[in-house]
Formats: sequence, structure tokens, C-alpha cells
Amino acid sequence: MEKPYVVGIDIGATTAKIGIVDARGNVLDQTAIRSNDTAKSEEFVSNLCDAVKRLVEKSYSLSDVRGIGIGAPNANYYNGTIENAVNLTWGGQQVIPFAQMMTDCIGLPVRLTNDANAAAVGEMTYGAARGMKNFITITLGTGVGSGIVVNGGVLYGHDGFAGELGHVTMVRHNGRLCGCGKTGCLEAYASATGVARTAREKLETTVTPSLLRNIPLEDITSKDVFEAAVQGDELAKEIFEFTGKMLGEAFADFVVFSSPEAIILFGGLTKAGDLLMKPVVQSMNQNLMPMWRNKIKVLFSQLKESDAAILGASGLAWEL
Amino acid sequence: MEKPYVVGIDIGATTAKIGIVDARGNVLDQTAIRSNDTAKSEEFVSNLCDAVKRLVEKSYSLSDVRGIGIGAPNANYYNGTIENAVNLTWGGQQVIPFAQMMTDCIGLPVRLTNDANAAAVGEMTYGAARGMKNFITITLGTGVGSGIVVNGGVLYGHDGFAGELGHVTMVRHNGRLCGCGKTGCLEAYASATGVARTAREKLETTVTPSLLRNIPLEDITSKDVFEAAVQGDELAKEIFEFTGKMLGEAFADFVVFSSPEAIILFGGLTKAGDLLMKPVVQSMNQNLMPMWRNKIKVLFSQLKESDAAILGASGLAWEL
Repeated sequence: MEKPYVVGIDIGATTAKIGIVDARGNVLDQTAIRSNDTAKSEEFVSNLCDAVKRLVEKSYSLSDVRGIGIGAPNANYYNGTIENAVNLTWGGQQVIPFAQMMTDCIGLPVRLTNDANAAAVGEMTYGAARGMKNFITITLGTGVGSGIVVNGGVLYGHDGFAGELGHVTMVRHNGRLCGCGKTGCLEAYASATGVARTAREKLETTVTPSLLRNIPLEDITSKDVFEAAVQGDELAKEIFEFTGKMLGEAFADFVVFSSPEAIILFGGLTKAGDLLMKPVVQSMNQNLMPMWRNKIKVLFSQLKESDAAILGASGLAWEL
Repeated sequence: MEKPYVVGIDIGATTAKIGIVDARGNVLDQTAIRSNDTAKSEEFVSNLCDAVKRLVEKSYSLSDVRGIGIGAPNANYYNGTIENAVNLTWGGQQVIPFAQMMTDCIGLPVRLTNDANAAAVGEMTYGAARGMKNFITITLGTGVGSGIVVNGGVLYGHDGFAGELGHVTMVRHNGRLCGCGKTGCLEAYASATGVARTAREKLETTVTPSLLRNIPLEDITSKDVFEAAVQGDELAKEIFEFTGKMLGEAFADFVVFSSPEAIILFGGLTKAGDLLMKPVVQSMNQNLMPMWRNKIKVLFSQLKESDAAILGASGLAWEL
């Protein structure tokens, strides 16, 4: 009989979430451990292994698990490595053969990819992209991540790092400094932090009245902007329009590249709903070549956000 | 025994070139017919079939031919159709099942793609991309075409029309009008006609002395700009630097998408050699994320230009 379960692991800078998942995308059980309490990758792998074993063996058996899929920063799918992951206490300035270390420890096959690609796999396996072979997921969180699927597979490129669409250059002159070291990147505008930056810029350079003026400038978050916009605040609505317009312009360029059936939006900023979706779709269509106008779907993720990272990672393991 | 030959056909607006090709990329014999002397696709297909038969049967036999690869404007690889090809006298406002019509006529399997994708296949089969699985070809001719190869196959996307990189938006405000109807497209700047437009703009908006001032403004071509640059003309050199800079900026965005091993330049404008290559490489590296800097090859095509279109199309037929 086919093994009925997979394990999905989402490794973040402070926490690693672990879930056991069935083929319909139900997270049957989950747990989490700290990911920042050691400087040694060997120690973290050992802790992670123990946690996976405890989770699985509580109600199931390791022999029922097909494999383990892991989403992690700076993960290389081809090599199963985590490379120079400066945001992980045990990851900086080295190439860690993470997949192999996990397999050695737990005796199951392991696939590794970055969290944005994992989101694409999750969407294809359980979510809004079921049945699609060509689509792009855009994760709008602290940064802007992307996973590109072509012909039913994630696009990894020559070195395993394809799909960094948060770092296309949207503003070529006097663009905002991005965390990657470049200026003018999409991520510097269309992420949650980008929205907060836009708010601060608008508050500093205009005198438009706004609910946001009640909040200390440095404390403003994208959530504040959303809440103000929901209350009808014009400046807050303008901020989402600006953000959506830039995203739509970027999406039009993505379409000429891979001609996807759909672009799927995921992450915290999508809570803004129509405030974001409307300007995105309008701007994308305005910037598309005529043959693609009104033909590319823009959809919200169908994965429950609390489970999404685990589901995405777990999707990888069905390929094993 | 494997059939040793393929036929490559390049359909342009005025001429269709036909060649018989061996596995090493030798064009053993070739011919051409007019492509604009009829308004009926049936008549053109019939003429083309006759020409292929005559060419092959002069020295070989149709039974030695594995198949036919065709590069044509507005060709859809998935369906084998030519769709709304307004530049072809027999192509506008209709979907022509061209591959099937050819097969019915000649009894050989037929694959169809657009000329820019055919160039990518040619480069992978016989040229600078042999052995590569992830690369992009950029054709710098009257327009800017592109063929994107991922995992060893051309990227066609959901509808068969992926890879229109000439139409990414490079100038978002007051950009030049492009033939596609949009403004600010790469093609409006980095094509041969784009170079001529840049020359006219610079001549009109500056008083810099230049050899180009000896030519009537409307007659200036990219060839004139090249010849002036070779003679050390500063304005002409500036034009290539501007063109190369914009191409490099675009290439940096292409890299974040598909992380190619190489970007391969093809087409008339590549005759400019280092005048173009140096600013392209410099600008691309300046705009790349640190992890890709100085790692992406930019190469000139290795296909002989006179044979390239036939070779590219013929490469498709080896898949048959």
C-alpha cells in the first residue's frame, strides 16, 4: 500500500513548524520547536529529528510516512543544502547538507526548497492552483517572495535559485534601498514593510488629513494602513492603490516571461482583499500586451494561513 | 536506422527559407520561395510542400527525413497553429492549423514555433548553448525577440506564447511607443530600430558633433551608428552604451526570474560586438543581486547568421 502521509516542516528564523499531512491537505497534527537556540546545525537537526519522531509516533508510525518536505530560507532544491542563511543562528556563511543530515538522522527521504517555492507547491497540491501547470505564486509578507511553476514543476533554474521576483527593479532612479543591497526592488514597495514605508513617505510629504497621523510615524505597520483604509481613510486607500499599481506593473512583466494561467497572492498583505486586488488587476491589464489582456487570473491563495507553510513544504514530499 | 536528416523552414513576411540539415547542424542544401504572393494559406502550404519535396528529392529521399521544424510569426507550439499573423499576406485575423496542413500535404511530422523560440532551439542543438539546460536567447533585430529554455525545454507557458521579453516595460514614464501598442517596451529601445530612434533623439536634443549629422535624420540606421562608432564617433559610442545599459538592466530582471546559465545574443545588432557587449555585461552585473554577480555568462550566438533561421527551425524536428 502507498504510504498515506507526508511530513511538512517550515523553518523560520525563530521557530520550526512541523506537521503531518494527508493527501487531501489535512494537517492531522502539528508541533513546533525553536530554531534559534543553537549555533550548530548538527544540534538543530538532531532536535528537529526528535520532534518529528515524537509527533509522528504519537498517533502514527514513521513507516506510514512517504517523506519529508522542508521549506527553509536560502534552501537549494538541487543540492538539498541551506546556503549562507544569515538569518538562521546556525546557518551563516556555510553550505549545510541539510536534507542529507535529516535523512541520516531519521531514515526518510527529504526534499528541501525555499519557503516561497514551497508555497507554490502547496497551492498546486492542495490549493488554488490544483490542476494548473503554469502559474506564479507571490508571497506578500515582510518581503516579497515568489514561486514560478512551469509545465507542472517549480522553476529552479541553473543554480536552484530562480524565482526571486521580489527583486525585479521597479524604480530605476532614486529607488528605495532593498534588503538585498540593490535599490528600487519590488520588495521595497509591495511588501508589508514596503506599505509601511509608503505610509511614512506620504505622511511626511503631504498634508492630507489621515487617521494614520494619530500613530507615531515609526510605529506604523501595514495593518494600521489596512485598518484606516477599511474606515474610509483616503490616504490609506491611496497607499493600497499605489502598492497595487506597482504590483500590477510587475505582474505584466512576469506574464511576458512565463505566460501563466494565474498569479496567486499569498501572505499577510492579502488580508487587504479588494483594496489590493482591484488596483492590481487594473494595473496589470493596462500594462499587458493586448493578447493577454483580461486573460490572466489573479487569485488569492486557498490555503489556510496558519497551515500554509507546513502544507507547502509537505507538498514537496509527495514527489518522493 | 534512424532517419539522418531534418528539414528546417523559416517563414518570414516576404520569403520562406527551406533547408535540409544533418545532426551536426550542416545545412546540406537550401532553397527559398516567396511567402507573400497569395492571400490563401492553402495555396501557400501547397507551394511550400512542393518546394520541400523538390529540395529533398534532388539529392535525398523524403523517407530519410525525420520531420519538419518551422519557425513562423505568431506560431503556437502547442496547437501547431499560426494565429492572427497580420504580417503574413495569408495570415491575418484567423487561426491556421499550419502544422496539420503541412503534414497532410507531405506525410511528415511537423513542429511549429515562433522564430525567437526557434533560435533558442538552434542554439541548444547546434550552437553556443549545447549542453545547457537553462538559458535565454535574445534576438536583437528589427524587434527584440526571446526564447527561454528551462530544464532543457523551451518555456511556452499556459497558452504557448511565453517568452516575449522584448515587451517588458523598461521606461514607465513617457516611454517610447512600441509596435505592440504599449509604451516603454525594451524592444522600442534595444532593437535595431530602437538604436536608430535613440540616434535621432540624441541628434535632435544635443549639439554634440557627430559623423551621423552627415546623414539625413530619417535615414539613419543602426548600421550607420555602428560604422560611426567604429570610427571613434563619441555620440555613436554613447548610443551603444545607452542601448547596452538598458539591455543589461533588463537582463538582471530576467535572471531573477529563471536564473539562467547564460544569456545568448543573436541578430543583426550583435555585429556591434564589444561596443554592445561591454555595457551590457557591466550594467547587468550592477543590477544583479549579489549572489548572481559575475556568474551569468553573456555570449554571442554561434550560429552562422545566414543559416541560423533554418537551423533553429530544424532543431525542433529532432524532438519528433
